Amino acid sequence: MADAGYAARRNRLIRSLKSSEVECLLVTRESSIRYLTGFTGDSSWLLIGPTATVLISDSRYQTQIREECPELEACIRTARKSLTDTAAGVVCRVHLRHLGFESDYLTVAQHSALAGKLTSTNLVPTNGLVEVLRAVKDKWETAQIHEAIRQAERAIAVIRAGLRPDQTETQIRFLLESSMRDFGAAGAAFEPIVAVGPTAALPHAHAGRRRVSESSVLLIDWGAVSAAGYRSDLTRVFFTGRVTKKMKSVYDTVLAAQRAAIHSIRAGVVCRDVDAAARSVIEKAGYGRRFGHGLGHGIGLDIHEDVRLSPTSEEVLKPGMVVTVEPGIYLDDQFGVRVEDDVLVTRNGCEVLTSVPREFDDVVIDFLA
Amino acid sequence: MADAGYAARRNRLIRSLKSSEVECLLVTRESSIRYLTGFTGDSSWLLIGPTATVLISDSRYQTQIREECPELEACIRTARKSLTDTAAGVVCRVHLRHLGFESDYLTVAQHSALAGKLTSTNLVPTNGLVEVLRAVKDKWETAQIHEAIRQAERAIAVIRAGLRPDQTETQIRFLLESSMRDFGAAGAAFEPIVAVGPTAALPHAHAGRRRVSESSVLLIDWGAVSAAGYRSDLTRVFFTGRVTKKMKSVYDTVLAAQRAAIHSIRAGVVCRDVDAAARSVIEKAGYGRRFGHGLGHGIGLDIHEDVRLSPTSEEVLKPGMVVTVEPGIYLDDQFGVRVEDDVLVTRNGCEVLTSVPREFDDVVIDFLA
Repeated sequence: MADAGYAARRNRLIRSLKSSEVECLLVTRESSIRYLTGFTGDSSWLLIGPTATVLISDSRYQTQIREECPELEACIRTARKSLTDTAAGVVCRVHLRHLGFESDYLTVAQHSALAGKLTSTNLVPTNGLVEVLRAVKDKWETAQIHEAIRQAERAIAVIRAGLRPDQTETQIRFLLESSMRDFGAAGAAFEPIVAVGPTAALPHAHAGRRRVSESSVLLIDWGAVSAAGYRSDLTRVFFTGRVTKKMKSVYDTVLAAQRAAIHSIRAGVVCRDVDAAARSVIEKAGYGRRFGHGLGHGIGLDIHEDVRLSPTSEEVLKPGMVVTVEPGIYLDDQFGVRVEDDVLVTRNGCEVLTSVPREFDDVVIDFLA
Repeated sequence: MADAGYAARRNRLIRSLKSSEVECLLVTRESSIRYLTGFTGDSSWLLIGPTATVLISDSRYQTQIREECPELEACIRTARKSLTDTAAGVVCRVHLRHLGFESDYLTVAQHSALAGKLTSTNLVPTNGLVEVLRAVKDKWETAQIHEAIRQAERAIAVIRAGLRPDQTETQIRFLLESSMRDFGAAGAAFEPIVAVGPTAALPHAHAGRRRVSESSVLLIDWGAVSAAGYRSDLTRVFFTGRVTKKMKSVYDTVLAAQRAAIHSIRAGVVCRDVDAAARSVIEKAGYGRRFGHGLGHGIGLDIHEDVRLSPTSEEVLKPGMVVTVEPGIYLDDQFGVRVEDDVLVTRNGCEVLTSVPREFDDVVIDFLA
């Protein structure tokens, strides 16, 4: 995975620390450690700064670290010593006065344990130092996300081609997951949502025993994780029976909202304005209260990354960010519609990376045809 | 899921709060919220105490909460309000002077945000208040774990029966996962480890492209999650080619260590003594430095729960606890052996819940036979 450029990423982070008040950063978010080192294990922390970069792990991972990041110094603890104690030992060794930590990824208990051991080091809360780098994808990362999208899209084509009225949500979910793997995915990017009828009105439903034939609406929210760990995230609604005027009008509204949002995306735009572009379309149609979540989020090594496209997000879009755009309308006890695509922010606009057809006619499935 | 007795669990927790210094507890660990309410969503917190019990969630989960825990008061936030702000609002409403929080499951940033809003409430760190209840399984929970074990065991029988020299680690992993689902599992309890030869010396290896025929040693560490969310966790090593004296001797040592540990398990025993029972067998055989992890851990709704069987754990076993017993010996660049079973602690000893054969002759597979 030499292409990922882990050393260059670490150097960018170290350079950014120079303009902050900390000498070194203790990285505790698992996916950020993978981003900076290529190490795919858990229960490990990374101390990083201009004077020292040490991966703090345990003996289960000793060989794996040698294989995945041989260039890194590693401090390996035994089962007798805790992660916090070991980390404190490393920090003491390099004599830090101000150590930054990730306040979103360190628990109160871990902080107390560290503070108890580090009597001459000031623990400084930081926020988003690695995330701000991760939010902007380079070409290699965008290619990995593209790979995850391709795996997800080939799989949904298989599902769509083989769809039958008697299939249950769970059957479709499992087929979708194994199909993504058949196309080279390491797995599903998250538990796929496969929801028939009223279940589709639950934005985070679990697949169950409902059959496709029980309603005209089938919602699928799915994504793949590529071999390199990057994720895709899509949603489509399929109409598998009689389509009411309301269904058609709700679908058209969601699609128009998504189009308005995508049209508004370009470098320099404030995230809440992208959310507002979609939300205002849904509000005008009278469904404002039926769209209870944010419009989208960054994707990458995690399924939810910076930035957030939400009504309150004041972040600014930059070229290279990859975000989901997923407006929805949820009618309790009836049905729900969400359409979700993955979009690369460019200097002058954006590129929609996903390509599963989403026009109304494209998502109508006639079992009798 | 009426059998789970969520209300009784909440009452036990509330009673235990009376002997602590907090009036209410803010539960932020996802699996503990499921344990106490049956709610299976995420991004939600539970405020619980004698005066108020409120599930704090968002509009994505409104209907799901009505279905999964209709008896609970819920406070549903919109996309415009953060989880911490909403929780602070609920706490203010019930006028708490001392609010306990789970210091292992609240980040420093969340704590700061709460503390900033709760100027007249003292935030008290707590540890293990729900976990101490969860560690002891009732009959219904043990039955759920049994179900997850049965799903895992039926699946490994399928894998074993169909094993071929040309199969890759990844192929076996995917077959194992889909087979567990065929037997009713909601999924894999964790990413199964399927490791051939030297890869088996990495206690947390990812399945890759290595083929069964490349070595005589095949290690599989797998488990299922039942429909109710309970997990099983097993490991077996299979010998699929020429077995050296060293392989046989390492296997016999690990099995003897496991037997010694299981023999030592009964209510009242200190956890580190169980670890020591296994570790001393491995140390006497000269492999002490090749067993770098703890002996085992509780299982339940999470794959790693209290209690820990480790060299430093001073916890005491109680009837109803279900723990893994998984000694291992890892020889870098050669092979690794681990044998793992799930054990129910009883008053006078223990009951091994798992039943995949583990005698040496049972794990030798002769492709020519």
